Amino acid sequence: MGDPGREEYKIQSFDAETQQLLKTALKAGRLECAELADLGQDEALCLAEEMQSLSWIGAFCSPQNRNPGAVDLEKVANVIVDHSLHDCVFSKEAGRMCYAIIQAESKQAGQSVFRRGLLNRLQQEYQAREQLRARSLQGWVCYVTFICNIFDYLRVNNMPMMALVNPVYDCLFRLAQPDSLSKEEEVDCLVLQLHRVGEQLEKMNRQRMDELFVLIRDGFLLPSGLSSLAQLLLLEIIEFRAAGWKTTPAAHKYYYSEVSD
Amino acid sequence: MGDPGREEYKIQSFDAETQQLLKTALKAGRLECAELADLGQDEALCLAEEMQSLSWIGAFCSPQNRNPGAVDLEKVANVIVDHSLHDCVFSKEAGRMCYAIIQAESKQAGQSVFRRGLLNRLQQEYQAREQLRARSLQGWVCYVTFICNIFDYLRVNNMPMMALVNPVYDCLFRLAQPDSLSKEEEVDCLVLQLHRVGEQLEKMNRQRMDELFVLIRDGFLLPSGLSSLAQLLLLEIIEFRAAGWKTTPAAHKYYYSEVSD
Repeated sequence: MGDPGREEYKIQSFDAETQQLLKTALKAGRLECAELADLGQDEALCLAEEMQSLSWIGAFCSPQNRNPGAVDLEKVANVIVDHSLHDCVFSKEAGRMCYAIIQAESKQAGQSVFRRGLLNRLQQEYQAREQLRARSLQGWVCYVTFICNIFDYLRVNNMPMMALVNPVYDCLFRLAQPDSLSKEEEVDCLVLQLHRVGEQLEKMNRQRMDELFVLIRDGFLLPSGLSSLAQLLLLEIIEFRAAGWKTTPAAHKYYYSEVSD
Repeated sequence: MGDPGREEYKIQSFDAETQQLLKTALKAGRLECAELADLGQDEALCLAEEMQSLSWIGAFCSPQNRNPGAVDLEKVANVIVDHSLHDCVFSKEAGRMCYAIIQAESKQAGQSVFRRGLLNRLQQEYQAREQLRARSLQGWVCYVTFICNIFDYLRVNNMPMMALVNPVYDCLFRLAQPDSLSKEEEVDCLVLQLHRVGEQLEKMNRQRMDELFVLIRDGFLLPSGLSSLAQLLLLEIIEFRAAGWKTTPAAHKYYYSEVSD
């Protein structure tokens, strides 16, 4: 938001055909500006911001563009997942878009082609996660970012999806293994996801969160070649959780303000 | 309590003359069993337990021993400080005894000879703390334990003594310097004191506590030859403070239960 360069990047990062597909999908779902009001106010605001930041607000809201047409929503789901695996910035934000499409699809036809397609692809990638990690560390980090973002946004009766709890935990446990803790990209991903979804995950299964933090503390305390930055990130997340998933003012000053001093 | 060996050690650790001096001081203060009821119930219980654990309950409560006599309370203060500097177990508990003597002295005669003597000696040792540390690491650790224990027990209008806040902080800051963090006795002392008086100290001066934890985090994160045990202790105290001076169940399991697994 407010960063034209980033918006530009966003819209250009899809090829023209894919952009058209996604736009059509959103329109096919008839998720119109007016319908945003049916969502909670916060959600509507978030969505509107998201659409704006993706420069789709024009196509999305202008009446002359309403031409639902046929669109393969399973293909849309695959496009989104594929793009997420290659673009970590996109994967951080894709949850909102998926949420919007799922809402729209469900409202229009009571269907869940997109949702099913999305969850199927997530599961395929989950099962092949070790291969993905071996093949492309960035792809793996993008995948974890994406599944956590989907966990964050997709709701059933205003609760996170139970089906995603263990896969998300499994990914985070993988990131907390010694070989991952020695890689800054993975540590960075781990703490980012815990900042984002840690509290919700803990509510769904406290015991696994306790176990995850055992791994994190162990990684810290056992000789393991952690970089200084990784140590700093892990200490911050340990304090963050201990304080009830909050950053205390003193911790904020230490971890965030003093860096720029 | 309930450990006869330890009681035996306690009473025998003073020479006969000193034991007599202390007993007389307590009796001179006419702090009798009946008077314990004037203290809050918890304090009375603590004191009674303390006296019992020191095997003084007999001398203290039996009527035939009530023979106040003259006693030099300044000398008593010096005896207690001297003994504290040589006996870290005693220094952890001496605060209660000092509190009892101060209460008794104040009730009987509205005087504060003992209290003044105690604070003067504390200040002398405080001013010479670097020499003390250079001369005897154990003496220094005992001193910090003692002053923190005094800070914990001595109250003015149910508040900790303002005059002790900065000296106590200065001692803890000293323990958080890199050369101290590389010594397990000092790290152990630092975290013990923070467990005991950290929350009260923070209430008296939050900014200094923030600064102290900057040193602790730095010591933890910067390459500094910390032992594994020291790292574990420091990580635990960082989590302890972050959680609002509490040990969360998960942290308890990690730091305390699993050690014995």
